[in-house]
Amino acid sequence: MLPTKEDIREAAARIAPAIVRTPLLEDPELSARIGAPAFIKPESLQRFGAFKIRGAYNKIAALSDAERANGVLAYSSGNHAIAVAAAARMFGIPAVIIMPADAPGAKLARTRALGAEVVTYERVGESREAIGERIARERGLPTVKPFDDPLVMAGQGTIGLEVAAALDERGVGQFTLVAPASGGGLAGGIAIALDARAAVIAVEPEGHDDLKRSVAAGKIVSNALGVRSICDALMVERPSARTLEAARTKLAAVETVSDDEVRAAMRHAFHALKLVIEPGGAAGLAYALSPRFALQGEALVVVASGGNVDAAMFASALAQN
Amino acid sequence: MLPTKEDIREAAARIAPAIVRTPLLEDPELSARIGAPAFIKPESLQRFGAFKIRGAYNKIAALSDAERANGVLAYSSGNHAIAVAAAARMFGIPAVIIMPADAPGAKLARTRALGAEVVTYERVGESREAIGERIARERGLPTVKPFDDPLVMAGQGTIGLEVAAALDERGVGQFTLVAPASGGGLAGGIAIALDARAAVIAVEPEGHDDLKRSVAAGKIVSNALGVRSICDALMVERPSARTLEAARTKLAAVETVSDDEVRAAMRHAFHALKLVIEPGGAAGLAYALSPRFALQGEALVVVASGGNVDAAMFASALAQN
Repeated sequence: MLPTKEDIREAAARIAPAIVRTPLLEDPELSARIGAPAFIKPESLQRFGAFKIRGAYNKIAALSDAERANGVLAYSSGNHAIAVAAAARMFGIPAVIIMPADAPGAKLARTRALGAEVVTYERVGESREAIGERIARERGLPTVKPFDDPLVMAGQGTIGLEVAAALDERGVGQFTLVAPASGGGLAGGIAIALDARAAVIAVEPEGHDDLKRSVAAGKIVSNALGVRSICDALMVERPSARTLEAARTKLAAVETVSDDEVRAAMRHAFHALKLVIEPGGAAGLAYALSPRFALQGEALVVVASGGNVDAAMFASALAQN
Repeated sequence: MLPTKEDIREAAARIAPAIVRTPLLEDPELSARIGAPAFIKPESLQRFGAFKIRGAYNKIAALSDAERANGVLAYSSGNHAIAVAAAARMFGIPAVIIMPADAPGAKLARTRALGAEVVTYERVGESREAIGERIARERGLPTVKPFDDPLVMAGQGTIGLEVAAALDERGVGQFTLVAPASGGGLAGGIAIALDARAAVIAVEPEGHDDLKRSVAAGKIVSNALGVRSICDALMVERPSARTLEAARTKLAAVETVSDDEVRAAMRHAFHALKLVIEPGGAAGLAYALSPRFALQGEALVVVASGGNVDAAMFASALAQN
C-alpha cells in the first residue's frame, strides 16, 4: 500500500534527468532561534517551482507507452497541475488538468502555457475527483493523482534521500524535518525515505487540518466546506487511506499554522533567505518559526515546498507585520 | 597589480569555511530566449545575501593578527558593509563602516546588527574615501576596500572557479558570463579566474557607467554627481587603476542597463526563478534579457550578485510592467 524505501531509490534514478537536485541552504536566523543548525530545502527552486514534478514525472515515466498513449489526466489546485503538464510535455503526450476556478492566476497561466487542456470547477459545490474521473473514463486517460499513489509518494520521497545525503556531508545524525501537508504525500514519502533517522512533522493550515484530525480519529475525516486559507496549495478535502496510513505510522506529528504565521514565514524567507516561497510552501517554515516548535535531534530541515505565488499576494504578505 | 589565478585558488581555500558554495541554477525561460543553456549563479543565496563576504573575508583573513588587532574599516553602500561587519565578527575584531545616509534601511540595520559602528555621510557632497581615510588614520585601522585590492578581487573571483567546476560537470566548454559592475572587482576577478574560457561582460546602470567610459577613454573617468539609480549597490564614483586594468585586459565588454530593465529582471527572477534579487544584483540579468545581448560560446551564466532589498522597493518592482 505504501511505497518502500527501495521504491523511493528507484524513483530517484528514474526522475534524475527531469529534476534539479535542490541545494540545502543554511538559515542562520532560524539556527540562532532554535539553538541548533537549521536548513531549508528550497523546492521553490525545483523545476516548475515546486516539488510536484518529482511525483508526477515518476508516475508518468512508470506507465507503459500503451498506458499513456492517449495522454494523462490530473486534478490539482496548481503545482501538481503544472508538474503533470510539464511531465506530459516531456513525454510528448497530451494532458487534461482539472483546476479550481479560483486557483492563482500564475498557476492557471503556467499550466496552459505548458500545453495542457485546463478544465475549471468551483471549489465549493463541485468535486474535482468526480469531474476528473468522468473525463478520464470518457477519454481513456490514466489519472496522475496528486498524492494517493505509491509512485507519486515515492517521487516526493526522493527529497528525503537528498536531505539525508546532504546531512551526511555535514556530519549530522538524527534530525527533525518539517514539511507542508496537503494530502500528505510529501511528508509521508519523505518519512519513509528517512525512516528512523528523522522525526518528520507535517504542517497544515488551520481549517484544513484534515490529516491531523484523521490521525487523531483513526479514520479519514474531511474538512468543513468553504473554509478559506491563503495556502491555496494545501486546501485538499481529505487524506486518502494510503496517506493516512503513512501519517499514522511514519510521522512524528501533524501540526497547524495560521495565515498570519504563514505570512510571517514568507517575510522571513524574503528577508533572511532571499527566497520567494508561496503561502502553502511556507507552512512548514511557519511552524518551525512558531513558539510551538520543539527540536528532536541535532538539526532541523524545513522543506519549502513551492514558490508559485502571484505578485500581488506576495507583496501583500511583505507589507504586513 | 592584479591578482593571479593562483591568488584566486588560494582565496578559495581560505574562504571555504566562511562561505556557501552557491548552486548553479537553470533558467529555462532565459535558455529558450537565447537558444542555449542559461544558468544563474545566485549570490543572493550567499551568506549575508551577497557575494561581498568572499572578498571581505579573504582580505581580513590574510591580515596578520597584529594588523587587524584594532579592527578594520570599510566604506560601502551596503553589501560590502554587511560583509566586512560579518567577517570582522568572525575574527572577533571591531569594524567601523562608512555608509551613505540614504543606503537602504535593511542594509544599514543589518550592518549595525552585526555589531559594526556605522558612520553615515551624504552621497552628494561628501567623499566616503576621505572620511574613511581620516578615521582609519586616527584609529590605526586597516581599510578593507570594496574593490581596489588584489585580495578582495581574488575573493570575488572564486565565483569564477565555482562556475567553471559546475559547467565542467555539465560538459560545457566556452561560455559567456554576465555580472553586475560597481567598481569592477567582481567581474574582473571572475574574468581572471576563467581566463580564456569565458567572455565576461560587466554591466553598469545608466548614468553610472564609469567603468564603460573609462575603458573607452583609456583612463579613469568619474560619474556625474547626483545621478540617481535604483541600483544602490552599483553607485560608485569611479573605477580604480587596478579594476580599469582588469576591465581593459580581461573583460569582453562593459554594457549598461536602464532602471526599467533592472525592474523587469527583478520580476523575471521572481516569476521564473523564485529568487529575490536586489536592483544592483539584477543588472547582469537585465542585460542578458535585453535585445542587445549576444551569446558567445555554448552557454550563458548570469551572476545575480545580491538579494538585500527592502520590501517596499521589491514590491514596487513587482507591481510595474
